[in-house]
Amino acid sequence: MVSIECSEMETLINVEEYSHSMEMKVRILDLDAGGKTIVVLNEQDARDLGVYSLDRVIITTEKDSLTAVVNTSDKFIPQGQIAVFDEVREGLCLTAGQDVQVLPRGGLQSKRYIRRKVNGAELTAGEIEQIISDVVERNLNDLELASFITALHMRGLSIAESTALIDAMVKTGSTLSFGKIACDKHSIGGVPGDKTSLLLVPVVAASGLTIPKTSSRAITSPSGTADRAEMLMPVNLDIEEIEYTVKKTQGCLVWGGALDLAPADDLLIQIEHPLGMDPLLLSSIISKKMSVGATHVVIDLPTGYRAKMKTVEDAQRLSRQFINLGTNVSMKIHCAITFGEQPIGHNIGPALEAREALEMLYRYEVSDLTEKVTSLAGILLHMAGKATSKRQGKIMAEKILKTKALSKMKQIIEAQGGDPRLKPEDIPVGEYCVSVTTERKGVVRWINNKELVRIASAAGCPKDTGAGIRLMKKLGDTVQAGDTLLEIRADKSSKLSQAERLAQQYPLMGIIERWDRAMILHTVA
Amino acid sequence: MVSIECSEMETLINVEEYSHSMEMKVRILDLDAGGKTIVVLNEQDARDLGVYSLDRVIITTEKDSLTAVVNTSDKFIPQGQIAVFDEVREGLCLTAGQDVQVLPRGGLQSKRYIRRKVNGAELTAGEIEQIISDVVERNLNDLELASFITALHMRGLSIAESTALIDAMVKTGSTLSFGKIACDKHSIGGVPGDKTSLLLVPVVAASGLTIPKTSSRAITSPSGTADRAEMLMPVNLDIEEIEYTVKKTQGCLVWGGALDLAPADDLLIQIEHPLGMDPLLLSSIISKKMSVGATHVVIDLPTGYRAKMKTVEDAQRLSRQFINLGTNVSMKIHCAITFGEQPIGHNIGPALEAREALEMLYRYEVSDLTEKVTSLAGILLHMAGKATSKRQGKIMAEKILKTKALSKMKQIIEAQGGDPRLKPEDIPVGEYCVSVTTERKGVVRWINNKELVRIASAAGCPKDTGAGIRLMKKLGDTVQAGDTLLEIRADKSSKLSQAERLAQQYPLMGIIERWDRAMILHTVA
Repeated sequence: MVSIECSEMETLINVEEYSHSMEMKVRILDLDAGGKTIVVLNEQDARDLGVYSLDRVIITTEKDSLTAVVNTSDKFIPQGQIAVFDEVREGLCLTAGQDVQVLPRGGLQSKRYIRRKVNGAELTAGEIEQIISDVVERNLNDLELASFITALHMRGLSIAESTALIDAMVKTGSTLSFGKIACDKHSIGGVPGDKTSLLLVPVVAASGLTIPKTSSRAITSPSGTADRAEMLMPVNLDIEEIEYTVKKTQGCLVWGGALDLAPADDLLIQIEHPLGMDPLLLSSIISKKMSVGATHVVIDLPTGYRAKMKTVEDAQRLSRQFINLGTNVSMKIHCAITFGEQPIGHNIGPALEAREALEMLYRYEVSDLTEKVTSLAGILLHMAGKATSKRQGKIMAEKILKTKALSKMKQIIEAQGGDPRLKPEDIPVGEYCVSVTTERKGVVRWINNKELVRIASAAGCPKDTGAGIRLMKKLGDTVQAGDTLLEIRADKSSKLSQAERLAQQYPLMGIIERWDRAMILHTVA
Repeated sequence: MVSIECSEMETLINVEEYSHSMEMKVRILDLDAGGKTIVVLNEQDARDLGVYSLDRVIITTEKDSLTAVVNTSDKFIPQGQIAVFDEVREGLCLTAGQDVQVLPRGGLQSKRYIRRKVNGAELTAGEIEQIISDVVERNLNDLELASFITALHMRGLSIAESTALIDAMVKTGSTLSFGKIACDKHSIGGVPGDKTSLLLVPVVAASGLTIPKTSSRAITSPSGTADRAEMLMPVNLDIEEIEYTVKKTQGCLVWGGALDLAPADDLLIQIEHPLGMDPLLLSSIISKKMSVGATHVVIDLPTGYRAKMKTVEDAQRLSRQFINLGTNVSMKIHCAITFGEQPIGHNIGPALEAREALEMLYRYEVSDLTEKVTSLAGILLHMAGKATSKRQGKIMAEKILKTKALSKMKQIIEAQGGDPRLKPEDIPVGEYCVSVTTERKGVVRWINNKELVRIASAAGCPKDTGAGIRLMKKLGDTVQAGDTLLEIRADKSSKLSQAERLAQQYPLMGIIERWDRAMILHTVA
């Protein structure tokens, strides 16, 4: 008898929330909401609909429908109108004055799953899939996403959860596939001037392996791999152009941002970044690599006092997690814990870094940069069966870097639509330049990476591509009083002055004769 | 020597983030942002300033400055312009085309304190004070607040943290004070039709005690105490008017929403509500009571299968926390765990409930409503020393309710600007009415409170003040086939039909001859 089945009934009531729709006239705001689908309702109308600020409504036209987040206003929107931001207008092809049906969107299952995670439960694959699908469809609002990220940060993810998350993130986006073996390389970042990929891709491709490298632009750093590569060739390729380039050259160096690869990852990073949390680090990286069809991946973990990983032990722990997770999704992963105490090579900034990488292809020279490139490439050559050991792989990679890498890079540049005749000196760098000298004498014992990043940003990086820093001295170098430590470059003189002012605020390098003559690290008064 | 004090230096760099200001022209959006201070910058300008979407900037005019949250747009805002929502325009008295200075706001200490809580630390009073101050100054964005609420929900608050939170919430708002003893009553809510305060205030005030009762409007329920009281008199009083009323009559029944009492609480509730979390329940209630200067407070915890507190044990646990916390802030608290399985009295909806309360003052009658009023008032009379025991207090309260409460209520109505001659039948109720009958016979064993709330909302509550429900039967009443169980009223016929349709979806009352003839509660197929 239905009338006394209390527990079932209460459940039904929770799921099937009461709702009725309302017909409203569209008002175009001519404003974009930063990628979010937002509408503004009169406060009374919202009340009548039973929705509150940040609740969702489903907007339906004769042809289509879309979920949007509600803002309310008591003054500017009259009753009966629905004001739409660009994302909603475009999504539904709305015109001013058009009638639409507005229906409160009932409780999302995903909200409950997030709540389960908050309360300490392990989520099932199905629950994670639903959450990620609602992330991609923009059904979850910022509060819910922030709560989810915070809960993941606090509770952590099990291997099963991470695996399900990767599957869901890959499934909800576009994917590439290049056959049975495809190599890839990823750095967790945190070291300025790391142009390793620019050299590693031609080396690996020249060995006969496939390496479809997608990369990101700078968010908080002076330049990302995509920013550096763009100094050499177009990087905004679409899926077809990438397939053409890789088929022709075995490699590519493209921007992954507009390819719709694991889009949930990008949306969640927009929440993680302002919160300063990255519980999805592992899943995020692996899902991007899965999306491009990578089967063998080397992951670089720069480690050191000023890097993301402070100790080798921390880096080992993270490496173990990468590898376990990789096993679960049938991806071979090898982690390399690298020295992360100073910039890689001498240059920081898109154009300066591209120049440095290209110079190294034209004129090989042993350095921390080439050492890093050949070590990581050697690992990939070994993983993919081209070399019998990492050591063997490194020797092969060195040989390729000295001989075939330049012509491979030219092929890639040409296939991506660039000019293969480009010389390092053709890449324009900032015309305004200032040197930073020292009055001290001794040996460079530490370099303040964070401060270098701030100076490069102040000089205009990454937007002003010619801006940046060139280090004249690196760790272990001997310095005499009056020596130039570094040069700052900028495209605009006003930015150069800002950067210069900043360079005077804090010491950029520690120059000490002997460590045992400087025992006080910090005093508290 | 400064140059090697690494740890100190790194700290400084973290705190003192690099920033430079930019002069921009104001563009007026003529849009309000729901109480938030939001500006829109061109994406390039934002990059030049080094800020991202949801970061904060400080906007400075010649006279004043204000912190706002950044949104970015690549299309609609040209470089050099800053588009401002109404809250920012009003806050700085801006006009279109005016020049303002825009400066990135560096990292907030509060963000780090929130992060400490996320990571499991107990916050100090100073840290909590800073967080609450940044909440009130709108320096923390929604993501940060959602993360904070989630962390509080997951980690809980220590007594010391709750105490500090209360202090901070009271300190950042307006306060009232009515001398050495001021009584107050609060219900954690969850039972429909609870008009207890409307009768308790005149009873307590007539006993000679002071009771400055502020209350809220309905958020998700059919009516809040402020909505009910507004049927009898104006409730939108300012601080001076409240002081006048209380001085004159010992009591008041006003809306607390616009009084700036513990404003942090209201801002945090806006985050808690959509997340469905209320980690601040205790601090929130006590800070509101502290703000009105309450010294003796009775807290009502309606308990039962369909109430917020499911068991007496749960309610006891929460009561203990209320009392401990009260002790810490020198507030005497007495918790009353009350029967919360059915509506209080017979009526639900602002006008219907106000009528019912006023009727009870004109013509006393023993009922669950008067029983609750006199019990709770009796506790207050005992706490404040007017009665030697709760039992004694209840008897005093009954006597007052039968004799002096009506004239006290008339005084309060008059002092708040209402008409003391108002009779119950003068309060207009919805003209559209429909009865819900039953074909069953037996005894009412349960009442579906949630469903009643949904029906009252569909009928127009709380906006349509005449809408609501009148119960003809309550728990334990005998029912014959054909009897009317309840009436639904609405101000609009369309809403009545919606409510009626809803009333047919689920059983509203469980009518069973004997419990032992209905053993199956739920089946799963």
